[in-house]
Amino acid sequence: MEVTLREGERIDDLERNGYRIIQNKNGFCFGMDAVLLSGFVKARPQDRVIDLGCGTGIIPLLISAKYGVRDITGLEIQPESAEMVERSVALNDLTDDIKIVLGDICQASDIFGKGCFDVVTSNPPYMKPSGGLTNPNEAKAVARHEIKCTFADVAGQASVLLKSGGKFFLVHRPERLAEIMDTLRSVGLEPKRLKMVHSFADSDATMFLLESAKGGNSGMKVEKPLIIYKDKDVYTDEIYEIYGF
Amino acid sequence: MEVTLREGERIDDLERNGYRIIQNKNGFCFGMDAVLLSGFVKARPQDRVIDLGCGTGIIPLLISAKYGVRDITGLEIQPESAEMVERSVALNDLTDDIKIVLGDICQASDIFGKGCFDVVTSNPPYMKPSGGLTNPNEAKAVARHEIKCTFADVAGQASVLLKSGGKFFLVHRPERLAEIMDTLRSVGLEPKRLKMVHSFADSDATMFLLESAKGGNSGMKVEKPLIIYKDKDVYTDEIYEIYGF
Repeated sequence: MEVTLREGERIDDLERNGYRIIQNKNGFCFGMDAVLLSGFVKARPQDRVIDLGCGTGIIPLLISAKYGVRDITGLEIQPESAEMVERSVALNDLTDDIKIVLGDICQASDIFGKGCFDVVTSNPPYMKPSGGLTNPNEAKAVARHEIKCTFADVAGQASVLLKSGGKFFLVHRPERLAEIMDTLRSVGLEPKRLKMVHSFADSDATMFLLESAKGGNSGMKVEKPLIIYKDKDVYTDEIYEIYGF
Repeated sequence: MEVTLREGERIDDLERNGYRIIQNKNGFCFGMDAVLLSGFVKARPQDRVIDLGCGTGIIPLLISAKYGVRDITGLEIQPESAEMVERSVALNDLTDDIKIVLGDICQASDIFGKGCFDVVTSNPPYMKPSGGLTNPNEAKAVARHEIKCTFADVAGQASVLLKSGGKFFLVHRPERLAEIMDTLRSVGLEPKRLKMVHSFADSDATMFLLESAKGGNSGMKVEKPLIIYKDKDVYTDEIYEIYGF
């Protein structure tokens, strides 16, 4: 399908199922975080999935490509982003499988109802509003800083949206690990599976991937760490596998 | 110094400062967990340190050996264990530096007072009373199961014993990570430094090491993982380094 590109936009190949994505070089482009999260997710073709704050649409697209899920919703608060994702979805002939909704994460359960998703995913803003410089580019600022929603908002909505036993998959920064697990438990999402991501085998973690279960019992596992580089500028085999090259 | 050995006891070399330890083959012998915890601890020679539930005394002995700390207390509820540790301390001529106190962790702050330690360590029982078979050997059962104290007891007492800014170092099982960080935060101990321990680079974690700070701000780091074996039956260099061989 042909789509219109706006100023600053380009089309990138996702190296999965021939899928492509539109991104704007002046906006927030997807990072490795989202790709690793999509590899960490467990979803079945019949699941109903929602991505909270879908940005460029990378997570809905990769979940469609990797798991063959046919009912994916991407919720995005920024009109320009939501409109761009709709064109990416159309570009891949996925308008039947992926719906993009313009709206606020804080109102997600008002929009979609309660207990109606099997899987929720999110690559939320990592930084507190006060933490670090806020990017003057609004799209980037909203993607990186908790300006429109806090992690407690995201977790609270994820819990309400999920069916009992449904799973919430997220990626976040290690410096907030304790606080985030605490917040999840406070809204009835029990951490079940954690994977630390390290740039090198001998460096501190730079992100973590976490699966929680709605109403799950206490008790979790920590999987083998995911190492990004085996040598300077050389990805590990696991990264190549997740990227699908 | 000469010491008396009771039935079933043997003397093991700690491979550090020439230190030796008495253990009873019928009781609970120290494991790698305690050794890794002692390598994870940060303590200065002038610190006042207490180990909650010192068992064989391995942690007080290694903290003395590794960091030159001169004021270490080991609290132990089992009379036979406490008496055996006292003989280990005497065996190493450390009676001026290490005091063994027979008592209950749940009453630690009544025994020692509030806000009087720089460092608290603990290799607590990992299993809930209901979880798994309880060992018919009482010494082993008390060391492994939360029979005499729960983790909330240990954390609560650690918090009261510590000075503001003091550090609590513990080793525990990954399945309880979320719950434990939650409990720590609820008693004012903020997780600051986490290290996952994996048997092999490609296996799930088997334990974790965690440093918390009393009254610390939210924000933590996850260090490079500690891998025990580089090959079947072959320890990694890091393990040899921690063991001091």
